[in-house]
Amino acid sequence: MAYQHWSYETLKALCMEVYQKFGFSTRDSEVITDVLLSSDLYGIESHGMQRMQLYNKGIRAGKIKVDAKPEVVFETPVSAVIDGHDAMGQLVGHRAMELAIEKAKTSGIGIVSARNSNHYGIAGYYAKMASSQGLIGLSCTNSTAIMVPTYGRRAMLGSNPIAMAVPAEPCDFFFDASTTVVTLGKLEVYNKQSKPLPLGWALDQEGIPSDNAGDVIHNITTGNGGGIVPLGGDTEQFGSHKGYGYGMIVEILSAILSLGATSNLCNIGGKGLVCHGFIAIDPAIFGDPAAIKEHLSNYLRQLRESPRAEGADRIYTHGEKEQEAVAVRMKEGIPVLDNTMVELLGICKYLDIDFSKYFGDYLPPDTGFKGNEFS
Amino acid sequence: MAYQHWSYETLKALCMEVYQKFGFSTRDSEVITDVLLSSDLYGIESHGMQRMQLYNKGIRAGKIKVDAKPEVVFETPVSAVIDGHDAMGQLVGHRAMELAIEKAKTSGIGIVSARNSNHYGIAGYYAKMASSQGLIGLSCTNSTAIMVPTYGRRAMLGSNPIAMAVPAEPCDFFFDASTTVVTLGKLEVYNKQSKPLPLGWALDQEGIPSDNAGDVIHNITTGNGGGIVPLGGDTEQFGSHKGYGYGMIVEILSAILSLGATSNLCNIGGKGLVCHGFIAIDPAIFGDPAAIKEHLSNYLRQLRESPRAEGADRIYTHGEKEQEAVAVRMKEGIPVLDNTMVELLGICKYLDIDFSKYFGDYLPPDTGFKGNEFS
Repeated sequence: MAYQHWSYETLKALCMEVYQKFGFSTRDSEVITDVLLSSDLYGIESHGMQRMQLYNKGIRAGKIKVDAKPEVVFETPVSAVIDGHDAMGQLVGHRAMELAIEKAKTSGIGIVSARNSNHYGIAGYYAKMASSQGLIGLSCTNSTAIMVPTYGRRAMLGSNPIAMAVPAEPCDFFFDASTTVVTLGKLEVYNKQSKPLPLGWALDQEGIPSDNAGDVIHNITTGNGGGIVPLGGDTEQFGSHKGYGYGMIVEILSAILSLGATSNLCNIGGKGLVCHGFIAIDPAIFGDPAAIKEHLSNYLRQLRESPRAEGADRIYTHGEKEQEAVAVRMKEGIPVLDNTMVELLGICKYLDIDFSKYFGDYLPPDTGFKGNEFS
Repeated sequence: MAYQHWSYETLKALCMEVYQKFGFSTRDSEVITDVLLSSDLYGIESHGMQRMQLYNKGIRAGKIKVDAKPEVVFETPVSAVIDGHDAMGQLVGHRAMELAIEKAKTSGIGIVSARNSNHYGIAGYYAKMASSQGLIGLSCTNSTAIMVPTYGRRAMLGSNPIAMAVPAEPCDFFFDASTTVVTLGKLEVYNKQSKPLPLGWALDQEGIPSDNAGDVIHNITTGNGGGIVPLGGDTEQFGSHKGYGYGMIVEILSAILSLGATSNLCNIGGKGLVCHGFIAIDPAIFGDPAAIKEHLSNYLRQLRESPRAEGADRIYTHGEKEQEAVAVRMKEGIPVLDNTMVELLGICKYLDIDFSKYFGDYLPPDTGFKGNEFS
């Protein structure tokens, strides 16, 4: 299974044509494209081109409504609840974080909880919207239930990522991670590569550790049971209850505060019902934003320069890998797996888009892969 | 190593006498006592009576200043920065959360960051202050560096717990956990019991997994290197970078926003310099607090009633264990390890308190234990 490298401009142009053909406005298509390509540029392969198949299916099934307009249904100077009305998750997320930022700029802080949305891509994108304006940003989302609670055997929480971005030099603190030990997207990538999963990531329908990505994805999709374990594993000895707890914090900030659907009810019966949470904070409400930024930058530097473990090349601070990945990918192109290209080809065929206009003579090899079941 | 059981009233009376003898006012002694005993009642042994030795040493060394008054040094309608002026951590924490709650009641949300404090006990106590008033509470703290960043070999972050409490029936959602795989307090308890640590909790000074609690505590205390790994372990495969990231979020909310000391500078050279973060949110800023509470309660019930893993007795939601522990301990007494009683005896001797007034004929067995090195 090989990777093809394509320029940012090529993939951007393709995405723009895809979403405009699906009926989104130019502005909305730009937002969706920017979220997708940011993920690939950051090196988060699972949420870039690899995710287009999910949206393709959702739009065609009517789960994602192209014409829907996210609506503010409750509001105070520091908060809001948004009803996404089944819009594309990226458009709900973008609108919600814009509103949180607006409130942070006037009131010091803004918290927005959104319901009835769809998969919104990487949580980090929205956190970065705030940090790129000098604010602290936090974003989280629930999603299709994939996380089995500690001592349970049915997935009841989503991958439930939490992302936070805080201005710093030479690169923002930028943390974006699922509260499960790994994401479903990572299982999909293993499945496309036909690689066995490390034991300790996922459980089969009996609650027994499984290394079969395809089986686990199938069981989750069909509600057979099993799923991915919380960060910390499947017992309390290494902190399973902690990952489960972080997952719960996400449910509270997204589904509970918005009175939306919890993960166990998301993406069932033709509705997305996904919920998100967003926080923007102006560091000026703690005094001197420049001093705070410098203080964080110093600490990040101390962490990077602290002694390394035997055999370790480098201590990273959160955000460095993404910043470096962007530089590499803008220069060398964005790697896309052949099996993901199979999905893109299918989308182009459906929308009557000329695949060769973007990818020339390249055609994905026929591996028998028909696209991820879940996505 | 046996446990003695003592009534809540006995231990409360002892604590009150101890802190008043140290020179704290009746009101301040009540706050300190309540934080300590809440921990023991919740079943969090590591932060109850077991922690008094730490405060005993801190007060006697002048690191914890009995007369210090926490001061609000910066304030907006939604935020504040508090300088603890080296006061007892519990008093800084209580004052800061009171202020956050006050702001939440008037502005909808309050965020307070505190610097120059000391160890403040369980983070959850302060989160509960908010939830007991119908608000959402969040509390976190940095602490002595014990967490080794992913691929590092020197402890650079604290145990950095995050606690959240949200009103629900029949018991609040109440999450309180370190962002390390386990706490130093747990290592201390293993040390007192002379039990080997499970591999995967801690690293020795070379960065190699260690099962020796005493060695790890000694190495951390003397700055030799090594420490406890983040939630998720010591490599990225199982999410080490995620636990490290949560630890960083705590540093940001506590030390960075308050311009205080990061964990790598806490409790060095005779100063505590510990920093905390507090958030209180009025759920009314999202609409109907009663509906939000009911929505959360329903979801918690669904989680508890979801299918259990093979061999598992029960699925817990966060806060149940603590609520049940309180009921058991109020009825059957609070278990205190003999080696912790050695420490209490020492404190009583120092303060000229009649140990037998509280514990009758009981005297801790002479095991050669002189009190935890760290505490």
